[in-house]
Amino acid sequence: MPGNKAVVYEGPGRVEVVDTDYPEFELKEGPGVPPANVGRKVGHGAIVRPVATNICGSDQHMVRGRTTAPPGLVLGHEITGEVVEVGPDVEVVKVGDLVSVPFNIACGRCRNCKAGDTHICERVNPEQPGGAYGYVDMGGWPGGQAEYVLVPYADWNLLRFPDRDQAMEKILDLAMLADIFPTGYHGCVSAGVTSGSTVYIAGAGPVGLAAACSAQFLGAAVVIVGDLNKDRLAQAHSFGCETVNVADGDPGEQIDHILGVPEVDCGVDAVGFEAKGHGPGGEEAPATVLNSLMRVTRAGGRLGIPGLYVTGDPGAKDEAAKEGSLSIRLGLGWAKAHAFVTGQCPVMRYHRKLMMAILNDRVQIANAVNPTVLPLDQAPHGYEEFDHGAARKYVLDPHGLINV
Amino acid sequence: MPGNKAVVYEGPGRVEVVDTDYPEFELKEGPGVPPANVGRKVGHGAIVRPVATNICGSDQHMVRGRTTAPPGLVLGHEITGEVVEVGPDVEVVKVGDLVSVPFNIACGRCRNCKAGDTHICERVNPEQPGGAYGYVDMGGWPGGQAEYVLVPYADWNLLRFPDRDQAMEKILDLAMLADIFPTGYHGCVSAGVTSGSTVYIAGAGPVGLAAACSAQFLGAAVVIVGDLNKDRLAQAHSFGCETVNVADGDPGEQIDHILGVPEVDCGVDAVGFEAKGHGPGGEEAPATVLNSLMRVTRAGGRLGIPGLYVTGDPGAKDEAAKEGSLSIRLGLGWAKAHAFVTGQCPVMRYHRKLMMAILNDRVQIANAVNPTVLPLDQAPHGYEEFDHGAARKYVLDPHGLINV
Amino acid sequence: MPGNKAVVYEGPGRVEVVDTDYPEFELKEGPGVPPANVGRKVGHGAIVRPVATNICGSDQHMVRGRTTAPPGLVLGHEITGEVVEVGPDVEVVKVGDLVSVPFNIACGRCRNCKAGDTHICERVNPEQPGGAYGYVDMGGWPGGQAEYVLVPYADWNLLRFPDRDQAMEKILDLAMLADIFPTGYHGCVSAGVTSGSTVYIAGAGPVGLAAACSAQFLGAAVVIVGDLNKDRLAQAHSFGCETVNVADGDPGEQIDHILGVPEVDCGVDAVGFEAKGHGPGGEEAPATVLNSLMRVTRAGGRLGIPGLYVTGDPGAKDEAAKEGSLSIRLGLGWAKAHAFVTGQCPVMRYHRKLMMAILNDRVQIANAVNPTVLPLDQAPHGYEEFDHGAARKYVLDPHGLINV
Amino acid sequence: MPGNKAVVYEGPGRVEVVDTDYPEFELKEGPGVPPANVGRKVGHGAIVRPVATNICGSDQHMVRGRTTAPPGLVLGHEITGEVVEVGPDVEVVKVGDLVSVPFNIACGRCRNCKAGDTHICERVNPEQPGGAYGYVDMGGWPGGQAEYVLVPYADWNLLRFPDRDQAMEKILDLAMLADIFPTGYHGCVSAGVTSGSTVYIAGAGPVGLAAACSAQFLGAAVVIVGDLNKDRLAQAHSFGCETVNVADGDPGEQIDHILGVPEVDCGVDAVGFEAKGHGPGGEEAPATVLNSLMRVTRAGGRLGIPGLYVTGDPGAKDEAAKEGSLSIRLGLGWAKAHAFVTGQCPVMRYHRKLMMAILNDRVQIANAVNPTVLPLDQAPHGYEEFDHGAARKYVLDPHGLINV
Repeated sequence: MPGNKAVVYEGPGRVEVVDTDYPEFELKEGPGVPPANVGRKVGHGAIVRPVATNICGSDQHMVRGRTTAPPGLVLGHEITGEVVEVGPDVEVVKVGDLVSVPFNIACGRCRNCKAGDTHICERVNPEQPGGAYGYVDMGGWPGGQAEYVLVPYADWNLLRFPDRDQAMEKILDLAMLADIFPTGYHGCVSAGVTSGSTVYIAGAGPVGLAAACSAQFLGAAVVIVGDLNKDRLAQAHSFGCETVNVADGDPGEQIDHILGVPEVDCGVDAVGFEAKGHGPGGEEAPATVLNSLMRVTRAGGRLGIPGLYVTGDPGAKDEAAKEGSLSIRLGLGWAKAHAFVTGQCPVMRYHRKLMMAILNDRVQIANAVNPTVLPLDQAPHGYEEFDHGAARKYVLDPHGLINV
Repeated sequence: MPGNKAVVYEGPGRVEVVDTDYPEFELKEGPGVPPANVGRKVGHGAIVRPVATNICGSDQHMVRGRTTAPPGLVLGHEITGEVVEVGPDVEVVKVGDLVSVPFNIACGRCRNCKAGDTHICERVNPEQPGGAYGYVDMGGWPGGQAEYVLVPYADWNLLRFPDRDQAMEKILDLAMLADIFPTGYHGCVSAGVTSGSTVYIAGAGPVGLAAACSAQFLGAAVVIVGDLNKDRLAQAHSFGCETVNVADGDPGEQIDHILGVPEVDCGVDAVGFEAKGHGPGGEEAPATVLNSLMRVTRAGGRLGIPGLYVTGDPGAKDEAAKEGSLSIRLGLGWAKAHAFVTGQCPVMRYHRKLMMAILNDRVQIANAVNPTVLPLDQAPHGYEEFDHGAARKYVLDPHGLINV
Repeated sequence: MPGNKAVVYEGPGRVEVVDTDYPEFELKEGPGVPPANVGRKVGHGAIVRPVATNICGSDQHMVRGRTTAPPGLVLGHEITGEVVEVGPDVEVVKVGDLVSVPFNIACGRCRNCKAGDTHICERVNPEQPGGAYGYVDMGGWPGGQAEYVLVPYADWNLLRFPDRDQAMEKILDLAMLADIFPTGYHGCVSAGVTSGSTVYIAGAGPVGLAAACSAQFLGAAVVIVGDLNKDRLAQAHSFGCETVNVADGDPGEQIDHILGVPEVDCGVDAVGFEAKGHGPGGEEAPATVLNSLMRVTRAGGRLGIPGLYVTGDPGAKDEAAKEGSLSIRLGLGWAKAHAFVTGQCPVMRYHRKLMMAILNDRVQIANAVNPTVLPLDQAPHGYEEFDHGAARKYVLDPHGLINV
Repeated sequence: MPGNKAVVYEGPGRVEVVDTDYPEFELKEGPGVPPANVGRKVGHGAIVRPVATNICGSDQHMVRGRTTAPPGLVLGHEITGEVVEVGPDVEVVKVGDLVSVPFNIACGRCRNCKAGDTHICERVNPEQPGGAYGYVDMGGWPGGQAEYVLVPYADWNLLRFPDRDQAMEKILDLAMLADIFPTGYHGCVSAGVTSGSTVYIAGAGPVGLAAACSAQFLGAAVVIVGDLNKDRLAQAHSFGCETVNVADGDPGEQIDHILGVPEVDCGVDAVGFEAKGHGPGGEEAPATVLNSLMRVTRAGGRLGIPGLYVTGDPGAKDEAAKEGSLSIRLGLGWAKAHAFVTGQCPVMRYHRKLMMAILNDRVQIANAVNPTVLPLDQAPHGYEEFDHGAARKYVLDPHGLINV
């Protein structure tokens, strides 16, 4: 039996690549595994050998110590790979299939899964609805920044690429199907983006860029991306977005300059709870993005909020924020009849259609998010650069299978 | 030309019935009329003689001095009456028609109206999207707690009852079509209420009761209403709702007792910014309803928020609330993937279908909200009783036309 | 091991109760089982002991010889019962659970199931999308008018009643969740029925009555049911429907008499391909219902078509109808911008919410469809009475568990 | 007062340019004007000077004598132009505005208009819901293939381009907003086209090409266009569509060759009632397109049917077709759970968003439909070439304002 090198969170600011056990068809005791999940049989699972396994901005929240993630947690929930083993209850998935693994783990048998709400599966996480690989409070399933990873409920969760060779040619696009492309797309759908919309996306990190790409793909007339990071704004500009540097003040005026009106049809929050204030040297100001979006989104508009907000933030700057409370100017949103759509993206609702668009050259998501491939051993380096605001999406290649 | 007795806001806590001018087909200068609206021609308008014109909880916000409403404002936006004159551009509405007047004034010619978003019409209020009769910051259109009222864009706004006699028999039901029935219904639709839903409605005032009645009409399996006011809870109980007295603590435990689970499918906030805390002797706590609704609404659920939140509240207890900012535990909502739907109800989207249901005895909205008819002169008395929490909906009858 | 008495189709006009094998966790060779399905392992299955198992109008199509159903087929796809065994891959369903079995068999693992389209599951029937118990061309799964029946993909398909005793008290309502209640409800949803709609339902057989009950439950203002059978019309009238006897001519005039206009908002075809013409002594006229519905449904309306149309009808009166072709006045529908929604009901989309409504006394489906309980042995008698147009829904009770 | 040269239908096969009266703000007696519409005051109207006024395939149905259009009818319902006069009730539209005129005339005051269903306005045509310019049975409003045209309910109907100079630069794209771009887009929306869909569009005339362009804009993965006309197929191919020559047999096999499966997700009928059979030398076969679409559209798919079907066709080849009845294999559609969406496009639902996409270079509709500009005098020539199957969209330029 092979070993399994994996990227492990070792404490605030510390990520290492260590040897772990090769997965079996059972969820073993380990860091962050809820007692009720220990020993769970996974005959419905598959073991996947990751071809591409990405670092996500939400991993950074853990690594920065802004969550209660336990040391020893194997990270990684953006997994694309090859099926190398299947459990006895698997009928559809075959060994050798090249697949995308949605970051949300779902059982396909509970009320929420049956309704298509795979982001809040009731059965994979005994502590609250919703599970994920390698993530705090998400059921304790080991992450996939590793040589091998166990995928439960394989027939339900996995998306098979129809042709291996074709897929390997577009692997850096397809690698975004596990999380950020559907997440950005969901943010736009939640915000009501459609043909001819004007859209403001707060945040030019990978999810913001994926949202911008999605907005274009959904037919938006004008896509405006705001951030404080010039490199990331340049990246957004490179594929046709307008940009707003929020260091220059509230976005409304700059939007007016672009559109001729100070408001957009649709707003997307791709920042989340670690937001910083506008203007130069902005301090952390967790409600600033939402309050700004209410100002710049027109009456009747919707706000898609894929950016993560948490129920507990040990590193927050005040007591309210520590329990996830923010001072939101709801009166303004109410006067403008805004709707606010929060939460994880249910990846399974979107990944097949986005795969079809990638395979037929209708959308260039890799070009938008600027992937950089690293071997697994260099994961700590990737985490560090990403944390410094590189305008890149880091893709780990544990088996050296990606040619770029 | 007749005179026009009307109910006028004279300052915090003071409402009087005074003589005003009979309307013309023009918006005249007056309290709260924006300069750009003064002198506006209303050839598309109709003059309506109210048969039933109700006192609304949102009128109370003004009368309590919790808004910037100017003294001299003629109140009243829940109008049902007879058309007595029409302007030269009116084609559909006829003198003698008995009609319901949506509380939102809309032009039928702007982008938002064309999209069915009559609650945020861009052309009837120069100051912000959205207009209404007799309401602060809503364009300065005189209210309809009066003997006569001018209705602009009559062909677009008015809903004609097909048969006068039939309508007069159900006038106390039909009188709720101008605002609270569609508003309660919209709150439920926004919350995703459908066949078989479990629903928690915060607030047993008229809008809360209308929401409860709407939830039942939409097929909800169980409708639970929460409030601090025992009379209002008894009223909710009288037509088949379960009730929760929030003086006894957070609703979750009581919901668990009723349903066997501590969460409902759908949450409705029928309270708004003047919310009071749970437990005995609750203080004003503007975010308490929303934070409580996030706790008791299941993951994936939606929160309909017909309860009014304002951009400015001179009477608020802290600086943040004075500008409409609330400390909302958004992290909890995000973890549960909640959606939040705010704003005025676009009455025109619903009033025709609800009228059909009333006329065919499919729904008993009057029975739910407990109307009490008063002559116009007794309006101040009605305002006072309502402010003290009477479990009643006050309907003014300026011309003594209602037989009850 | 027990035996398994079952209702078997023995040829046109002939139904018998015979001894068959007790089910195993495998699909065995048998009448109508496609070769590719023979020997299929069903470790994900459950064996259910039917408490109530209904005769359906679509069974009659087979029994009348209007399909290519093979003799020897065990009938029955409307199953409610108790789980007596589960396969090794079953996690959620437990022995002893009282459950409703959707008539469509679905795998929960294919593209269509993942999209909620369980009526066109791609994997349970090798011959075409969509499977069912005891039905021609639906994958060869044995029917449930039997003492025991195998339910594949039990965790995905089955709906558990939360409380056995409560469920047994409402068993004749809950028995309608397997097919006709969701089917009637789906017909109404497809037709756009909502609060305040006027609805015309062609056909007062069990599905038509279930559609009528559903339309009321959805808040329709007026529900009109048309048929040639006076007993069935009387049954529709008994729970508040208006009725039209199509023997008296085209329904438009009678609708005008009821509503004051000759058109309804929404049309439902609960008849299907064995339709008979209007007027006294109507001959079979397969397009007559659809053509009539286009006349009586207003412009912009939708037609829900739960009534079955087939691709091959050996008993049809002309060559076109034998291959499922009908002379439809599409030009009329086009001029009125109608939409037509056909196909089996995806039961899983609706059964949970309808169960909640039943258990909380919000809807009385049994009262609408008039169930009559028979022991399994009397199934042939039930088929015969039903074929003669009895205004009843026949419920078989193989184990004598229903007290009525 | 100026005269008004206009394109007039003079009888089967005959179109001439004749002198007519300059419009007034009243609907005058004339060919095809229903008596109840004669003398109707149009104070809400505007007089528009067409800059671009297109010949439509549906005009050809009239010119070929396949309708009951009366001789003397001024043709033309695809109008883009400049407002030169407004009636006294017009508030929003200004003289000098450059506007798109939706081909459907709508009042903005009836139940259907209020619901956004402007294709079936109840008040502009006394004979049936729905009005249009220059079209048989559509209310008798004179057409706009003329120097001047009266547009009723101008504030409701007209879409103003924000900037004249910008608009004139894209005038051949914007000219498609009056009909074929929204019509093609509506066909795709009706068919459920979304990100990643595979789509088959029957017909490569201007509406088919507009549908193909719309499908791409909506994010379709693969768009396949079928026709018998090689020039039109070449035009479809020129902007990235796959093509199927139906002269080579049923499209299923060719689709299989393109996609690897013989079915698409979504089907669009852009042909209508004058369809011809597959194979070489296809005869007129009005149901052939729909029956073929049912074969090639996957189970659960939807069929958008923008192609025109009529209630009466004097030139049809059999009695059934003469009254608009077609032999449709509905049993096949039912087995596949298809939905069918028919009728005119409600242009107002889409034109603003599509204008935004054009003005921001997100879609190239002119490039797709290949416009050819002709002076008004050459309209008869344009009709003739178009009737012979030219792969062009003919745009008349009555005032010589278009530079190409």
